[in-house]
Amino acid sequence: MSIQTVPVRLGDRTYDILIGSGLIARAGEEIASRLPRVRVAIVTDDNVARPHLAPLVESLEKAGVASTVITLPPGEKTKSFDALQKVVDGILAARLERGDAVIALGGGVIGDLAGFAAGIVRRGMRFVQMPTSLLAQVDSSVGGKTGINSAHGKNLVGVFHQPQLVLADIDVLDTLPEREFRAGYAEVAKYGLIDRPDFFAWLEANWREVFAGGPARTQAIAESCRAKADVVARDEFETGDRALLNLGHTFGHALEAATGYDSQRLVHGEGVAIGMALAHRFSSRLNLCSMDDALRVEAHLKAVGLPMKMSDIPGSLPDAERLLGYIAQDKKVSRGELTFILTRGIGQSFIAKNVPSSEVLSFLRENLPA
Amino acid sequence: MSIQTVPVRLGDRTYDILIGSGLIARAGEEIASRLPRVRVAIVTDDNVARPHLAPLVESLEKAGVASTVITLPPGEKTKSFDALQKVVDGILAARLERGDAVIALGGGVIGDLAGFAAGIVRRGMRFVQMPTSLLAQVDSSVGGKTGINSAHGKNLVGVFHQPQLVLADIDVLDTLPEREFRAGYAEVAKYGLIDRPDFFAWLEANWREVFAGGPARTQAIAESCRAKADVVARDEFETGDRALLNLGHTFGHALEAATGYDSQRLVHGEGVAIGMALAHRFSSRLNLCSMDDALRVEAHLKAVGLPMKMSDIPGSLPDAERLLGYIAQDKKVSRGELTFILTRGIGQSFIAKNVPSSEVLSFLRENLPA
Repeated sequence: MSIQTVPVRLGDRTYDILIGSGLIARAGEEIASRLPRVRVAIVTDDNVARPHLAPLVESLEKAGVASTVITLPPGEKTKSFDALQKVVDGILAARLERGDAVIALGGGVIGDLAGFAAGIVRRGMRFVQMPTSLLAQVDSSVGGKTGINSAHGKNLVGVFHQPQLVLADIDVLDTLPEREFRAGYAEVAKYGLIDRPDFFAWLEANWREVFAGGPARTQAIAESCRAKADVVARDEFETGDRALLNLGHTFGHALEAATGYDSQRLVHGEGVAIGMALAHRFSSRLNLCSMDDALRVEAHLKAVGLPMKMSDIPGSLPDAERLLGYIAQDKKVSRGELTFILTRGIGQSFIAKNVPSSEVLSFLRENLPA
Repeated sequence: MSIQTVPVRLGDRTYDILIGSGLIARAGEEIASRLPRVRVAIVTDDNVARPHLAPLVESLEKAGVASTVITLPPGEKTKSFDALQKVVDGILAARLERGDAVIALGGGVIGDLAGFAAGIVRRGMRFVQMPTSLLAQVDSSVGGKTGINSAHGKNLVGVFHQPQLVLADIDVLDTLPEREFRAGYAEVAKYGLIDRPDFFAWLEANWREVFAGGPARTQAIAESCRAKADVVARDEFETGDRALLNLGHTFGHALEAATGYDSQRLVHGEGVAIGMALAHRFSSRLNLCSMDDALRVEAHLKAVGLPMKMSDIPGSLPDAERLLGYIAQDKKVSRGELTFILTRGIGQSFIAKNVPSSEVLSFLRENLPA
């Protein structure tokens, strides 16, 4: 199976995403040829380091790239000011310069944190993403958003900082827990639902092959990266169209907050899955989208084993008023008015501003489990 | 005396610097008309807040601009991760949105810290600078560099984030300690030495009026801002010409580090003054610049009461080898080679790459006090 290259076209910040098999072993060669004389700091977590760090360091050594390693505890709590400071100090202690690179070897948490550090050390170093989860390969590796969490909410602190290169090795996904792969799949399906109805239909027909690995998996990841890259190229700094990528995320983030970011109960991709189903159902309630399309979305998410209703979340949820409060604190609020990504059907999403909060409240009341 | 406007032309990040008398009282009006419906977080320190915070808040209130205040201890130690987190949390606690603004009311420390916070909260909020020191008015308010210090050196962590507006009220300088005003003057003289020989000659003739206040002061600040804006417009992200602004800073930063950033012994502008004198003397030693020009620089700095030799620093200094070590850790190092701003004479500075460290070492040995 060959390697697919997806270019992300952003003027002088244009970069390539390579997707395929064996890319960790080829990392040294790719990095040394694209970033001559670079030195690197590898940021990773304990879980990812165990299988993947030694092969990466070996590949870099073979290519003559000197590396230092900064290892963090796994998990969302690592997206903190403390961890950021640890990474920044580690990079500076290694005396890396502006032209040197930070490599993020890990999932979304490591990518967001390491990218943020790369964006602020010496006001911006080079950055290479090596995403090791499906979610990171199709979402956080494209678009340059980096950041950490705050007591006030997720991803509220960060910068836009584009990588020079993304290496998405699909082999690493074989070692993922199935629940994590499935959660990442929610973002794959999202690209179909935003504006690629044919891709959604392809997924309905081929999701088993995507889960099994091989060419269908590379194809699904590459198509997802292309879809995201198209949106990002239109709106790098999220002043317009890029908000489409938040399909499912406004409800999803609120549910993550409502469950205290407890990954036993709900991980990000599961929140997005329920959020996408709710966005379609809410659109149907507002007579924007047919109930048939909303049910088709729910059926596909259910088929792959994803949750798609609030009642699928174990444990109790806060009431509709408190959920609305979480939505209002979400950063997609513009001047106090609620902005949602709604849809006119499969692959026909759009940005809806001035959604009345009373409508959201009634909808939440109807859909919360008794 | 009228208000001078200096535009900083950076494409869609273009903004105005207003310089003159009474601008704190006019701040509400200027901000409300330029940033409609904005809410603000004022970041300041205890010393600046005492005389200037109440008039600013009052001016904002009159113009219908709601504000929240975040006050920090004065001093360089405030450029830390801890203070950054405090400012970020304060902005988020006030529920400010992306379109809202952070106002930096203070000197360079507050400007650098508040600008960094504005650059990372929600991946970039609006930012208004109200610099209250001469140094901040002529240097840190132009160009969008923000940041904090690290155990590894000054300003090693930060972002480029341009303000929407700078309001430089010259009246606030009347309450500055004379030593602080004088230190800021070193950066004013720097612009003459970089590429404006006529401005340097004007300062030699008019420095007493600049120190006394009034139109000559406004003129000197406006000319300095124009000089810096010209360089920044050519090279926003410091990949080339912008390094000229570091004239005097490589030696200066090393001396600041060597004196442990102890403001009793040496403040930033004083380090720059000695650094500029050393840069001219070093250029003369390398047969690039006449000794007459080096002596002319020293004479002017001495006339205004600034230090201009390493022996002017009270207390003992480390030896030449250790000073060179501080220089090597400075961020203007490119791939291990020393880059200096040298000069061919008054107003003829240039970027010199590959300066042999052996030359620097001999020069330091000759010029360190016995």
